Amino acid sequence: MKKDEMLYLRAARGEKFEKPPVWLMRQAGRYLPEYNLIRKKFSFLDVCNNPELACEVTMQPIRRFHFDASIMFSDILVPLVPMGAELSFGKGHGPVISNTIRSKSDVDKIKKIEPRESLKHVLESVKMMRAELPGDVALIGFAGAPFTLSSYWVEGGKPDPFANLKGMMYHQPETFINLLEKLGEMVVDYLSALVEAGADAIQLFDTWAGIMPVHEYRKFNLPVLKSIFSGLKHLGVPTTYYAKGSMHLLPEMKNTGADVIGLDWRSPLDEARVTLGAETVLQGNLDPTVLLGSEETIRRETRRILSEVNGSGGHIFNLGHGILPMTPISSVEILLDEIRGHSA
Amino acid sequence: MKKDEMLYLRAARGEKFEKPPVWLMRQAGRYLPEYNLIRKKFSFLDVCNNPELACEVTMQPIRRFHFDASIMFSDILVPLVPMGAELSFGKGHGPVISNTIRSKSDVDKIKKIEPRESLKHVLESVKMMRAELPGDVALIGFAGAPFTLSSYWVEGGKPDPFANLKGMMYHQPETFINLLEKLGEMVVDYLSALVEAGADAIQLFDTWAGIMPVHEYRKFNLPVLKSIFSGLKHLGVPTTYYAKGSMHLLPEMKNTGADVIGLDWRSPLDEARVTLGAETVLQGNLDPTVLLGSEETIRRETRRILSEVNGSGGHIFNLGHGILPMTPISSVEILLDEIRGHSA
Repeated sequence: MKKDEMLYLRAARGEKFEKPPVWLMRQAGRYLPEYNLIRKKFSFLDVCNNPELACEVTMQPIRRFHFDASIMFSDILVPLVPMGAELSFGKGHGPVISNTIRSKSDVDKIKKIEPRESLKHVLESVKMMRAELPGDVALIGFAGAPFTLSSYWVEGGKPDPFANLKGMMYHQPETFINLLEKLGEMVVDYLSALVEAGADAIQLFDTWAGIMPVHEYRKFNLPVLKSIFSGLKHLGVPTTYYAKGSMHLLPEMKNTGADVIGLDWRSPLDEARVTLGAETVLQGNLDPTVLLGSEETIRRETRRILSEVNGSGGHIFNLGHGILPMTPISSVEILLDEIRGHSA
Repeated sequence: MKKDEMLYLRAARGEKFEKPPVWLMRQAGRYLPEYNLIRKKFSFLDVCNNPELACEVTMQPIRRFHFDASIMFSDILVPLVPMGAELSFGKGHGPVISNTIRSKSDVDKIKKIEPRESLKHVLESVKMMRAELPGDVALIGFAGAPFTLSSYWVEGGKPDPFANLKGMMYHQPETFINLLEKLGEMVVDYLSALVEAGADAIQLFDTWAGIMPVHEYRKFNLPVLKSIFSGLKHLGVPTTYYAKGSMHLLPEMKNTGADVIGLDWRSPLDEARVTLGAETVLQGNLDPTVLLGSEETIRRETRRILSEVNGSGGHIFNLGHGILPMTPISSVEILLDEIRGHSA
């Protein structure tokens, strides 16, 4: 199959389909017994850093469900390691970065990286993934957006309540902007290298952007996002921007320059369509907890989403946030059956 | 001073002021050294349950800052204890409820309470607080909204990612609604008793409502909220409804029947004014992290909020969420100076 025929890529470029392409955030993850089997033997970072393992877990959900897109298995924090971050994942805890960034001299110490050197293992895994994926399945490469990356590095782990980050933003705005710009440069280089290695499309995760009020988002997040998406334009692959809990930022997201806007389950697709216009492709936005519900609930809520976007513009079906570890496999099967139709 | 002359109550009833009344969520809390001194000797629940201690910590921020309103020191989960919840607070952890609610028989076991009996110690503390407060400071009694209370009880502690709650909502909707109704009855009885004991106003915290997409909020949260606010009408005190991260729910919040809508820092007051109309009083919404910023930042952001509501309707100044433990005392002083004017 030619690249241009992949359903996901056609939809990401704005084509409309009655049965939209579908993939799920964190589709390679803990709800899959075959994933848990691998994680019994290897840590999360081991799997991220080993091309064979990363490729294997990326393939797992495709073998089971033949999603229309496959997202490379990795973590948004992986590229921070060659930049100087001392990253670890404790058992049952989230990420920990032991050398936090708090001052101008910390920012000055951040290393500029050449991803083709220092992240060679990730590029290697992307090559393997692309080679192993079926021809009709698009491979999505991803990175964290600078604001979200900075929030982990400044806070040294899970960022809530963002006290140090906001402290830096308010007391040392130039240093903070400098940090965002350094991260932004890395993101462009890294995503370019991923596309070279075989990624067919790009998604930028700005998980924590939703904590910003709109006037601060405009000042801090937007300039670096614009420069990233314009810096990726020449690659010729579709780009997606996702931010959780970001209904209040929707009008500004249009200005990022991303082709596709990923929405969480609280931003109704029909309202987003009005705000973003017909040319922006929407991705989302089933509440991941719906997959813990009954068959009737899953079918009803899936139909509701399909009808919200019905004929109004391009749409890629996804969850509004990552699939939950306790999700039954059968729920994913019901979801796919409802989207792809009973005849499929 | 007569009750009718309290600035907070006048504003809550819709009067407009150039310098609005101000209080802060969690104003009796860990940013105050005098509070930490008490917490060195007594646990959080000890302070909630002992009228002298609860009264003392409630007075602390009033002595320092003479806020226009005082919120009783307690926790939204306190009234669940006589209903049957086995509640504890671990050190550094959030609340834990060891006997979770998962089934119809669990809901059936919930005890109907008479707050004047089983929560006598809370009512006693409210009496003491009202007696000790200056005459121009309004006393706010509060409760958790049924959805938010249910989320703690069903999950057995911090509710995120709401897997059991949503599971119950989707698999056993009648049981879930029955749970909400039982909690709703308690809330009306409890808040009525607080007003009898001396509370001048009421605030209902629906902290987690923001995780609901609007169609589910309409189905599950709204009916019980309507019955609560209509059940409180005869008390003749102003009522406030607060939900975090709830910009997408604003149009429906108007239908709760609350006099005042409390907003978090992500819902711009001018947009909320358009959605809610001139008759709804707005409370909020400074980002609590702004108080970690420089004097210039605090003054600028405070002025921004004052100008957003300028002349558009009633306003009570508050943070968009609880004050952070690392907030410097001087930041609160700057905030008050900016709101009340340099001459004050």
